[in-house]
Parts: sequence; C-alpha cells; structure tokens
Amino acid sequence: MIEFNVEFFGYSAAILTTLAFLPQLIKTIKTKTADDVSLITLIMFLAGVGFWIIYGIKISSLPILTANLITFFLNTLILVSKIYFSNKKL
Amino acid sequence: MIEFNVEFFGYSAAILTTLAFLPQLIKTIKTKTADDVSLITLIMFLAGVGFWIIYGIKISSLPILTANLITFFLNTLILVSKIYFSNKKL
Repeated sequence: MIEFNVEFFGYSAAILTTLAFLPQLIKTIKTKTADDVSLITLIMFLAGVGFWIIYGIKISSLPILTANLITFFLNTLILVSKIYFSNKKL
Repeated sequence: MIEFNVEFFGYSAAILTTLAFLPQLIKTIKTKTADDVSLITLIMFLAGVGFWIIYGIKISSLPILTANLITFFLNTLILVSKIYFSNKKL
C-alpha cells in the first residue's frame, strides 16, 4: 500500500477549506440573497482568518499566508454580497 | 509597546475560526432554514477539515487536531440541520 506523504494531507486540507467558499459566493450572487448565512459567523470567521494572516507572516509560513489571504478575500466578497442584497430588499 | 507573542495570534485565529460556526448553527436551528447556505461549500469544507484532522494526527499537533474536530462537529450539525429542514419543507 502506498503511504501518502504528510504534506499531501496538509495541502489537500488547505486547498479544500480555501476554495470551499467559492460555491457560497457563486450561490449568493446567483440567488441574490444570503439571508440564511449568519452575519456573526462571517464577521468572527473573517477576524479569525485575519489573525491567521498575521500568524502566517510572523512565522514566515507562505502556505498559511496564501491560503488565508484567499479565504479572507472570498469571505469578504460573501459578506459584501450579503449586505448588498439585503439592503436592496428594503 | 507590548510585543504580542506569536502564539497569541495562532490561538486567537484557531478559536475564532472554530467558534465562528456556532452562530450559523444557532441561526439555522432558530430560523429552521439554511437554503442560502451552499451545500457544495459545506461538503468541500468538511472534506478539507477532515484532511486537517488527518494532518493534525500525522504531525502530532494537538491544537490543529482539537480545533478541526470541533469545526468538523459544528459543520456536520449545520449540514444535518440544513438537510433536515430542507426535507421538512417538501
């Protein structure tokens, strides 16, 4: 049996948990609503990802920095879309 | 000025990105709907978190393991609630 490299799991994890937010962004833009998506979750998550970015810089980890910059970018777009479509309904 | 410890950022990041999913779970249970939450996002995210758990075990990192076990648990409950409330509407 092939023994997978440890890095394989780390990179698969980073790619999946980063790109996972792309379908949410596409869905929000397509359906023009994200009312069911928790605002508190988005804000807490963005704050946390912001700390991961600082942590990545401090420990000079390019994978942590890159993955979290993309996650931050995607989730900011989800947050902005949510607020934009929510205001449009008023 | 106090120079914050690197670990402070790592632990703050881990706590925030883990507990961020609690408000989403509470919101889903309260409103009895999570139609706007992307199913593909949840599945990709759970798969990614699963890889982080394996990675955490392989590199013997208790913080990575603990944070991702909680994240996996919370997101599984969000996924189950989403499917449950979605089926109830049919």
